[in-house]
Amino acid sequence: MEARRPLHVALIGAGRIGKVHGMNIHHHPDTDVRYVVDPYAEAAQSLADSVSATVVDLDVVFNDEHLDAVVICSATPTHSDLIERGLLAGKAVFCEKPIDLSIERVNTVLAKTRDCKAPFLIGFNRRFDPAAAAMFQRVQAGDIGDVELVTIISKDPEPPPIDYVRVSGGLFRDMSIHDIDMARFMLGEEPSSVMATAAALTSPEIATEGDVDTACITLQCPSGKIAVITNSRRASFGYDQRMEVHGSLGSLRTDNVPATTLVLERAEGVRREPPLNFFIERYQDAYRLEWQHFVDVLHGKCAPLVTGIDGQKALLIADAAYESLKTGRRISI
Amino acid sequence: MEARRPLHVALIGAGRIGKVHGMNIHHHPDTDVRYVVDPYAEAAQSLADSVSATVVDLDVVFNDEHLDAVVICSATPTHSDLIERGLLAGKAVFCEKPIDLSIERVNTVLAKTRDCKAPFLIGFNRRFDPAAAAMFQRVQAGDIGDVELVTIISKDPEPPPIDYVRVSGGLFRDMSIHDIDMARFMLGEEPSSVMATAAALTSPEIATEGDVDTACITLQCPSGKIAVITNSRRASFGYDQRMEVHGSLGSLRTDNVPATTLVLERAEGVRREPPLNFFIERYQDAYRLEWQHFVDVLHGKCAPLVTGIDGQKALLIADAAYESLKTGRRISI
Amino acid sequence: MEARRPLHVALIGAGRIGKVHGMNIHHHPDTDVRYVVDPYAEAAQSLADSVSATVVDLDVVFNDEHLDAVVICSATPTHSDLIERGLLAGKAVFCEKPIDLSIERVNTVLAKTRDCKAPFLIGFNRRFDPAAAAMFQRVQAGDIGDVELVTIISKDPEPPPIDYVRVSGGLFRDMSIHDIDMARFMLGEEPSSVMATAAALTSPEIATEGDVDTACITLQCPSGKIAVITNSRRASFGYDQRMEVHGSLGSLRTDNVPATTLVLERAEGVRREPPLNFFIERYQDAYRLEWQHFVDVLHGKCAPLVTGIDGQKALLIADAAYESLKTGRRISI
Amino acid sequence: MEARRPLHVALIGAGRIGKVHGMNIHHHPDTDVRYVVDPYAEAAQSLADSVSATVVDLDVVFNDEHLDAVVICSATPTHSDLIERGLLAGKAVFCEKPIDLSIERVNTVLAKTRDCKAPFLIGFNRRFDPAAAAMFQRVQAGDIGDVELVTIISKDPEPPPIDYVRVSGGLFRDMSIHDIDMARFMLGEEPSSVMATAAALTSPEIATEGDVDTACITLQCPSGKIAVITNSRRASFGYDQRMEVHGSLGSLRTDNVPATTLVLERAEGVRREPPLNFFIERYQDAYRLEWQHFVDVLHGKCAPLVTGIDGQKALLIADAAYESLKTGRRISI
Repeated sequence: MEARRPLHVALIGAGRIGKVHGMNIHHHPDTDVRYVVDPYAEAAQSLADSVSATVVDLDVVFNDEHLDAVVICSATPTHSDLIERGLLAGKAVFCEKPIDLSIERVNTVLAKTRDCKAPFLIGFNRRFDPAAAAMFQRVQAGDIGDVELVTIISKDPEPPPIDYVRVSGGLFRDMSIHDIDMARFMLGEEPSSVMATAAALTSPEIATEGDVDTACITLQCPSGKIAVITNSRRASFGYDQRMEVHGSLGSLRTDNVPATTLVLERAEGVRREPPLNFFIERYQDAYRLEWQHFVDVLHGKCAPLVTGIDGQKALLIADAAYESLKTGRRISI
Repeated sequence: MEARRPLHVALIGAGRIGKVHGMNIHHHPDTDVRYVVDPYAEAAQSLADSVSATVVDLDVVFNDEHLDAVVICSATPTHSDLIERGLLAGKAVFCEKPIDLSIERVNTVLAKTRDCKAPFLIGFNRRFDPAAAAMFQRVQAGDIGDVELVTIISKDPEPPPIDYVRVSGGLFRDMSIHDIDMARFMLGEEPSSVMATAAALTSPEIATEGDVDTACITLQCPSGKIAVITNSRRASFGYDQRMEVHGSLGSLRTDNVPATTLVLERAEGVRREPPLNFFIERYQDAYRLEWQHFVDVLHGKCAPLVTGIDGQKALLIADAAYESLKTGRRISI
Repeated sequence: MEARRPLHVALIGAGRIGKVHGMNIHHHPDTDVRYVVDPYAEAAQSLADSVSATVVDLDVVFNDEHLDAVVICSATPTHSDLIERGLLAGKAVFCEKPIDLSIERVNTVLAKTRDCKAPFLIGFNRRFDPAAAAMFQRVQAGDIGDVELVTIISKDPEPPPIDYVRVSGGLFRDMSIHDIDMARFMLGEEPSSVMATAAALTSPEIATEGDVDTACITLQCPSGKIAVITNSRRASFGYDQRMEVHGSLGSLRTDNVPATTLVLERAEGVRREPPLNFFIERYQDAYRLEWQHFVDVLHGKCAPLVTGIDGQKALLIADAAYESLKTGRRISI
Repeated sequence: MEARRPLHVALIGAGRIGKVHGMNIHHHPDTDVRYVVDPYAEAAQSLADSVSATVVDLDVVFNDEHLDAVVICSATPTHSDLIERGLLAGKAVFCEKPIDLSIERVNTVLAKTRDCKAPFLIGFNRRFDPAAAAMFQRVQAGDIGDVELVTIISKDPEPPPIDYVRVSGGLFRDMSIHDIDMARFMLGEEPSSVMATAAALTSPEIATEGDVDTACITLQCPSGKIAVITNSRRASFGYDQRMEVHGSLGSLRTDNVPATTLVLERAEGVRREPPLNFFIERYQDAYRLEWQHFVDVLHGKCAPLVTGIDGQKALLIADAAYESLKTGRRISI
């Protein structure tokens, strides 16, 4: 194989998740971080130093005709404009979820960029988790027969700061949306109705903001298949991420991942380590494999596994879940 | 302690569960099976032989003034009359669930027997499962702080015969009712609303009967606490019985129980034994401890842990779940 | 099948293990405890009351021509005489291990009773543990190919009283002998050499008595197969009983058994219950199935799975282990 | 903190383990692979390309006064000379085990380099495995009281090629030596005697070479503490790497690591994935953390955790194990 220059990537957003992607891009043999963009100059420079990149502003990014891809890790309200600019400039775009918190805005983005040829990947990272990917493969291989019931337990270790809650779009659009995407992925059929039950139990502030922190969302498909998502903003023992797919011939389950297998046995019981605390640790491999997938997309080896349509459909379901919560009714999607 | 004659018990119903209780009564040092009653003479005699009892008809049972207790394991439609006869005759009554499939009939039984002094225990056997009992104790001890979310996964190994389905009262009244009782037990607060999603996926016959076999029932309490029950009539790998209680300080979980801890490790993976296949095996200890509890009640050491009121409330919730399923609405209880 | 009178059993020894066997005999439909013998009159009467038996002395036992079997649970020094008396009187004998602590005495017992027709079962209870029995069946079925390595980890929860240590015959003859029997059972070939390493680490008293409490015994067969036994008198977390058989195609493992599957997850980790504390709890099913096996033997359905020869061979290996410990050499058996 | 140029490293040996270290050095922000040396030009160039290094010969390495460290991953017979040249040239040296297969040669290396100031780290990678490191920390913290018994089960997935067996130094010097190092690490006291039992069971070729493939090595310390190492060259289900430390207050255990937590439940049982197949996968994190440790050593933050003395002592014990195997005696070290 002849040598190929590494693909040039611009990284927009130098926060926590920006750093994760930055290192993965930097360590991948086929990609280089060329630019880092962030309004906080210090964060931008520090990340740029780690990955041998240059700090620039957005105009440089979208006017560099040698740039191959844009990775969007900035604040949610900036996503939709950046996706449009990137795709319309002919750049491949990888954007952290969500496209936008408003379904109308999402629809506009998808309409405007419909004819763009460049690939667009939405960062539903969990699809790339090795356990989830192996589960999906076995479901596809028929190991459990027909899928009947998907059960997702997904809990964060602690509620986010109230300032974040305020702009998050609420539990369903911010957190459950990942589980909704996984449910769609595993069901293999589009849900047609949703019911939701929820409450604010972890902190009075969340209730004051009109949000909830503990919930059950039930999806149902035209064929009758069901998905049950259980969420909490606070699992005191760590990040609780488990999934089950139940089918006519058996079940597949994934479990939490502790830091190590160490077990301490004493008179008071047999103690294992708690699950890895949060998404950066738990989904470290998923983020790396997500980037590998995007590189494969850039090399033309495959189509994006998660597209703007997936972002749109997950948001539609989250919106419907809110309507169910408010009206006490089963909502058609 | 001075010697006490064993308590005399009449066992009504010599089927599968009748045999379980019969042996537990027979092996308990404080109780004897005195009578066995069953319209199938052969079954009655065979069980009576195993436990050194006499086969009689119901009149003998209710007219024997030395009889201490009646255990009702006969077909569901006979329960309510037998409970009434037993309690009104001054006998302690232990009756397998349900009191009746009709809430009106249940209400009548409770009204008629309100002033009876003899104790009345309903056979929600799972409360006596050592894992469930230990879970309840830890919840009560505050080990997980305030309860926020109860999650119950409960699946039978295979659907019952369609003739049974027809008279069962339906999935919610027949099977989910056990999980509804466990949810009430663990929540520590009475649910005030219910939502249900369900389908018939395992066999076309179940749909033809107008019943469902795959379901999610969500309960909510006035404080906001949620319980999520997930059911299936068919877990190809065995009887799937798991429970979680999530609280402000942590979680408690119970797992399935395999026949032994044996593990086989070969190139294709690490294989453990499947869960014990069904309730007779899985809840063997629970049935024994349930009987021990009833003996303690008979000795005046404690009040029944599960009463007619518990049977009534579980049925009310099951009925409301059906209404939610039909109307697509959250139903107040 | 025509009715058969229950088999009559005499129980010699009304201590802890005597009670276990007494209840199993009493609850088995084919057997009755007819006599209880114990020098401590109170213990004898209490057990006799529980199982509807009569307290008698040894002469009654051995002169009752209607008695079918003798179960020996008395102190070790009495075993050999009782076995001889029982077998020579034509009674079936089930004796708790060991036959005797002296190999010469064991040899005499076996020689004297060589021509007795009545069956003789030695109480190596672990062979009847459901997990061990399932392991043995899978080994026999070839699931792991040729056996190469047997690994047994066996630890008591705490050292016995020093008075018991004094008369126990020492760690190898008292405790390791169970593991030696399991190793012989799983190896499927007679060990031909042994090496031992040991120390007294849990209490200075044990060292003072010249005994050890922590040990590794390695057995090897003529074909090269190896068994490794690791012992300790003190596992602070409970009774540690694990076994592995490694073969050319894979491995089989058994694990400890907690009281329930309950798991508590809190910030400090994921805590399961400790293993069942000691042999009475851990091997409850094994003792019941051991009795079922003896009943099958009495009914002529099968030969005893563990005979006097097994008791003799295990003791020979324990003696050789002591010689290895003393001389620092590999000892041929 | 002022910017520091990355440390320059020469990598000798571009085989399987050389690639692992090469990528870790390359991805570490503080280190660069400057040179790659390997007699196989193609392998050298390919690895050099991956890590932006230059292929050179040994003279360039030892004459570059700006070079900070030498990493030795070449064939075993070259280790001792390269260690000497590196340390005497004032370079820090990180060498894969062993120093040499001959204890005399090891003694010479240590004697010749005694006065060298540059640090020397031996690649006993398992000490850096997160589970082993966490275990060691808890042992040190007193969580299990006084250490009494260390049990190490260590099996390769399949025997190496017979050509490798021939030059490997034999099972004890090639494979068990890792376990011997771990035993020394966890015991916290130097073993003073050893006993060994072994056989060639996996292939007749291994026996023909005079080597063994299945073994138990027992170490004992002056205080009486025992370590038991069980080895096999063939675990058909994958790389079997488990460790236990038993102490006066409890036990610590580590378990195998599957690729993911995925579980498949079907009628035939509950199947998890097999352990990661071999050391490259299983100890991926250990190798990365080992390099981080060496960087810390280079920065003067700490002394090497594993030194030439550790390599020497492990080899002494392996040699003694062979003597025990041959003579059938406990061998003093």
